[in-house]
Amino acid sequence: MVKRQLILVAFLQAANCSNYPASWRHPASQGDFLAPEYYARIARILEYGKFHMAFIDDRLSMPDRYRDAYEEAVREGVRCVKLDLVPVATAIALATRRLGIGITYSTTYSSPFQVARIFATLDHFSGGRIAWNIVTSLNDSEAANCGLVQHPEHDTRYEMADEFMEAVLGLWDTWEDDALVLDKERGVFADPAKVHRLNHAGRYYRSRGPLTVPRMPQGYPVLMQAGQSDRGRAFAARWAEAVFAIYANADLGRTLTRDLRERAAAYGRQPDSLKVLPAIYVVPGETATIARDKADLARGLAREADTLLLLCEALNLDLSRYPYDEPLPDEVLNGISGLRGIVDRVVKLSGKKNPTVRDIVVHSGRGTLTEMPLFAGTAAQIADQMGDWLDREVCDGFVVAAPYVPGAYEDFVRLVVPELVRRGLFRSEYEGCTLRENLGLARPHNSLARRFGGF
Amino acid sequence: MVKRQLILVAFLQAANCSNYPASWRHPASQGDFLAPEYYARIARILEYGKFHMAFIDDRLSMPDRYRDAYEEAVREGVRCVKLDLVPVATAIALATRRLGIGITYSTTYSSPFQVARIFATLDHFSGGRIAWNIVTSLNDSEAANCGLVQHPEHDTRYEMADEFMEAVLGLWDTWEDDALVLDKERGVFADPAKVHRLNHAGRYYRSRGPLTVPRMPQGYPVLMQAGQSDRGRAFAARWAEAVFAIYANADLGRTLTRDLRERAAAYGRQPDSLKVLPAIYVVPGETATIARDKADLARGLAREADTLLLLCEALNLDLSRYPYDEPLPDEVLNGISGLRGIVDRVVKLSGKKNPTVRDIVVHSGRGTLTEMPLFAGTAAQIADQMGDWLDREVCDGFVVAAPYVPGAYEDFVRLVVPELVRRGLFRSEYEGCTLRENLGLARPHNSLARRFGGF
Repeated sequence: MVKRQLILVAFLQAANCSNYPASWRHPASQGDFLAPEYYARIARILEYGKFHMAFIDDRLSMPDRYRDAYEEAVREGVRCVKLDLVPVATAIALATRRLGIGITYSTTYSSPFQVARIFATLDHFSGGRIAWNIVTSLNDSEAANCGLVQHPEHDTRYEMADEFMEAVLGLWDTWEDDALVLDKERGVFADPAKVHRLNHAGRYYRSRGPLTVPRMPQGYPVLMQAGQSDRGRAFAARWAEAVFAIYANADLGRTLTRDLRERAAAYGRQPDSLKVLPAIYVVPGETATIARDKADLARGLAREADTLLLLCEALNLDLSRYPYDEPLPDEVLNGISGLRGIVDRVVKLSGKKNPTVRDIVVHSGRGTLTEMPLFAGTAAQIADQMGDWLDREVCDGFVVAAPYVPGAYEDFVRLVVPELVRRGLFRSEYEGCTLRENLGLARPHNSLARRFGGF
Repeated sequence: MVKRQLILVAFLQAANCSNYPASWRHPASQGDFLAPEYYARIARILEYGKFHMAFIDDRLSMPDRYRDAYEEAVREGVRCVKLDLVPVATAIALATRRLGIGITYSTTYSSPFQVARIFATLDHFSGGRIAWNIVTSLNDSEAANCGLVQHPEHDTRYEMADEFMEAVLGLWDTWEDDALVLDKERGVFADPAKVHRLNHAGRYYRSRGPLTVPRMPQGYPVLMQAGQSDRGRAFAARWAEAVFAIYANADLGRTLTRDLRERAAAYGRQPDSLKVLPAIYVVPGETATIARDKADLARGLAREADTLLLLCEALNLDLSRYPYDEPLPDEVLNGISGLRGIVDRVVKLSGKKNPTVRDIVVHSGRGTLTEMPLFAGTAAQIADQMGDWLDREVCDGFVVAAPYVPGAYEDFVRLVVPELVRRGLFRSEYEGCTLRENLGLARPHNSLARRFGGF
């Protein structure tokens, strides 16, 4: 039996900071986050380390749910910058040749046609290296920026997202693989029998098609999802090929992974067509002491504001309205329309059905290095931890977040990746051209293709 | 007095063909229109010739109004491909250093916040070289793809677009130029007193702000518009800094230019802050004979389908429903919700208040080389024509369309540009870094900036 190998994804932000909001205050952080070269530089490091993918988060607002104010986020630099991800993805595609590029795009503020066209274009431009992290958008700040009076309620959003996916996948199928003819002499550009209307007309969306972009190299982009609530898992089990998760520890991770695979099987899918990738922070060092000192330095950059601002943003709830040390009532907890996975985690870790605001701050660790497991140490120590999680089927690989950029990736690529390769836990070269090939995912069947001649 | 010099813009499509749909059938046309290199290659030629800008058209559907069918457009290759323009603009930005990049983006299918964020990101990534061609979207095919049941009526669309502009410009003003502090030691990322809410709440749009992108290099992208109807001209006079127009001849151009400048003055604007740029086809040759033969070759590539498909698309009207040689009744003509400028032009050129379908086909010349003036000949002949239009104040420069790509631009850059420079009609080097600087346009005032200390 071939030994299972790790999938490695980097967790980026098109922002002034990494996933760790304090990262911009790090002495070696670079400040040119408004230039394409900033992202190209990180991408080249990741490709040198043979990472499968650079994955970028998004949000259509700065954090301003806490006290309904944006000023603190701006002053402290807490994810107040969020660039549009399409130029960022394009810049990375043009700076690399094999690295996959996953970008977050909301199903709430654009039509399926626009989203289908963006990803089809990006997949062509990158030679088949694009992934789409599907989000349903979660907070009222985004709604207030984009013109909705209030954000749709949590489960309705997923119902809409299911229909959105049906429409988008259908649009990607409107061109068959071999529709282009390009015969100048006869003047035949494409075979109209291999280009189709979609005529999607559902409860929430309508789209006629055909799309204006021929079939993309990968058929569909690799589909990613991050929802951890019950409804979010159901959505992931149906659609996602890679699930990005945050586990507090390995045991919670095993449980989630098993649950997702069982749900995927219930949809008739091969369980291993769904890759589960927990986020971790890494701080590699040449010695354990150097790693510890580096982790201490990074940890010391965090400020109290980071946690509260990001928590309110993610939960879509202004926590300043509740006493800090009193249990939050059921109606508040049940009414949360943001990332419900955070509350589930806090309930599990605190052992309280009704946690206080303080419990949420402490156990979510949002915006701090405790939000995700921190793998700090020598290459051997980090490789031990990664190998252990892989062997115990806690995950299929990792979404590697950086407490400082690009330094943490440089350290990881130079110190840890060679050790993983030595141990047979990671391949030493890209195996294919497209991201699907490199992840071992099948190219999707075209649902609109007509079959002739005995098929 | 300094001699007036030409503004030169190239008219591109992110598609299988140039503006001339038959161009893909040209023997020297290149078929890799799904790759970024295709656009980078054209852009490098334009930059070598010191063009001010590459401008790219858009449409969210393939032409399928004629007989309500898409098959003919697909078979004949009539603009059935339309890539998303943000990756295309990014690829051009990264392949060049001074060339401006204008992309079309509709106000109908995205929120002001999303549009503001896209253009702010692109302006940062290009170092201040972005222009936005504002379109209100014109046809029912686009509506059917993007989920609207029917397209808003012509004048309502412009009323919505006016409010859209107020919101977008406001969002671009939410960060002042010097808001970023980036002080790691004190942990001050930006000055919250220089970042503002917008709180736009109008009849059609709401957006709270701030935008998640700091103020872009140009303040706003250069604003372009192409509407030639009465309502379209009013919109252009209020907002546009460059108007892209199609004149049948110099006299019609002079009239339009004078009208636009007068309307701009009525809005309190400097008349020359609005640059009027008519589209022309160019076919330069080393000799007049070569140019004539090249033009004949290009002309011979057109097919009947090209014209009817594109006309129905542009007028948003299925002309197959009317007899070919009977005057179109008033209610049909007045009900046209697409490009009304086409009808105005046909009425002028045919001398008929109620033209027939044939009149529209012949006088619009849509999809053929007669749609726009064709400047074919030696460098001296083309420079004569260009200089004549500039001297007579027919225009401020040209939007140069190519009957074949990239060949027509290569010929233009090698033959015509040096002749224009010799005559003092065109500069030999970019004068500034940003597109605004190169067009001689002022950087906009920030409407939300607070003035202290005597300002």
